[in-house]
Amino acid sequence: MPHINLGNDEAGIRSLFMYRPETAHPMRMLAEVLLRGPSTLSRGERELIATYVSSRNGCSYCTASHAECASAQLPEGMELVDQVRTDVTTAPVTPKLAALLRIAAAVQESGKAVNADDVAIARDAGATDLEIHDTVLIAAAFCMYNRYVDGLATTLRPDQAAYAAAAQVILNNGYLPAASQSAASPLVAHG
Amino acid sequence: MPHINLGNDEAGIRSLFMYRPETAHPMRMLAEVLLRGPSTLSRGERELIATYVSSRNGCSYCTASHAECASAQLPEGMELVDQVRTDVTTAPVTPKLAALLRIAAAVQESGKAVNADDVAIARDAGATDLEIHDTVLIAAAFCMYNRYVDGLATTLRPDQAAYAAAAQVILNNGYLPAASQSAASPLVAHG
Repeated sequence: MPHINLGNDEAGIRSLFMYRPETAHPMRMLAEVLLRGPSTLSRGERELIATYVSSRNGCSYCTASHAECASAQLPEGMELVDQVRTDVTTAPVTPKLAALLRIAAAVQESGKAVNADDVAIARDAGATDLEIHDTVLIAAAFCMYNRYVDGLATTLRPDQAAYAAAAQVILNNGYLPAASQSAASPLVAHG
Repeated sequence: MPHINLGNDEAGIRSLFMYRPETAHPMRMLAEVLLRGPSTLSRGERELIATYVSSRNGCSYCTASHAECASAQLPEGMELVDQVRTDVTTAPVTPKLAALLRIAAAVQESGKAVNADDVAIARDAGATDLEIHDTVLIAAAFCMYNRYVDGLATTLRPDQAAYAAAAQVILNNGYLPAASQSAASPLVAHG
């Protein structure tokens, strides 16, 4: 049971977004830019980083949610997601993605844990400055989302199929609710 | 020296906001709502929570920045900020604020570290559900901002006076840059 009365029966972060729309809006915007906006990292790779950090933080809701978003957008599907979660050092990812996941793991521990060697390895493997930046910020952002979800003891979805269904809605519509998307693009909405 | 080439000489999170405006915008919005928006917690109390979490995360830039924002908005000034940072258990804060700081400390460790007893103590001391919610989210958000600032090894300001001057700009104008404020309120901008 959540620590506070959220006044709705949604699960996880959705229950918090409904409770406090003023903070939900920027948090949804940030997820949309980081996980789905223009990037040389694929959406599947970015969701994999989010899943990996959520898993390291022990956040069941975010791990299950983003594992579904990652697996649906990666050619290797859930098998790769599970391999990364189980042992990132042996998971069959590119050297660049392996280096970025290593940076994400450092961020999950502490910002200060990211060292110049980690960054140099990523750069040698072909990562751009912007990819390194976005990896650090995705990892940092999930240290927020995970703590928000667990710090208020929000509820889980009933089963994995429910996470898969919710992920499908995100794949189709993104992290912003329909109203925010129209508000952000009045010309499109009325065009 | 920052881990990546940010292309500007700003310090701390300002250098990152300038480098990546697409993510800066929602991150600034979130800070504005949480630390300065309508709330039954004073702006000084909220900045104190942000400072305390930043200090626990060892983030020098954010600690110095928000200590100045807190001290300028608290009747007790920097003395109280220093007392909270040094030993929160003996700092002369109200029982409610002490309980909220205890929740913030738990969030800094892990979302799962917040337990029902912490929440009950805060509620008994007069904290509302919304105050508990916002405390959890302020603490979680600073676990993001701190990791972002340190994970990319951004630079510090030259001295404490520079943090005080920067805080004064935030006290006057808020966390959103002037352009974003006008964009959010076209009627005001053109009225």
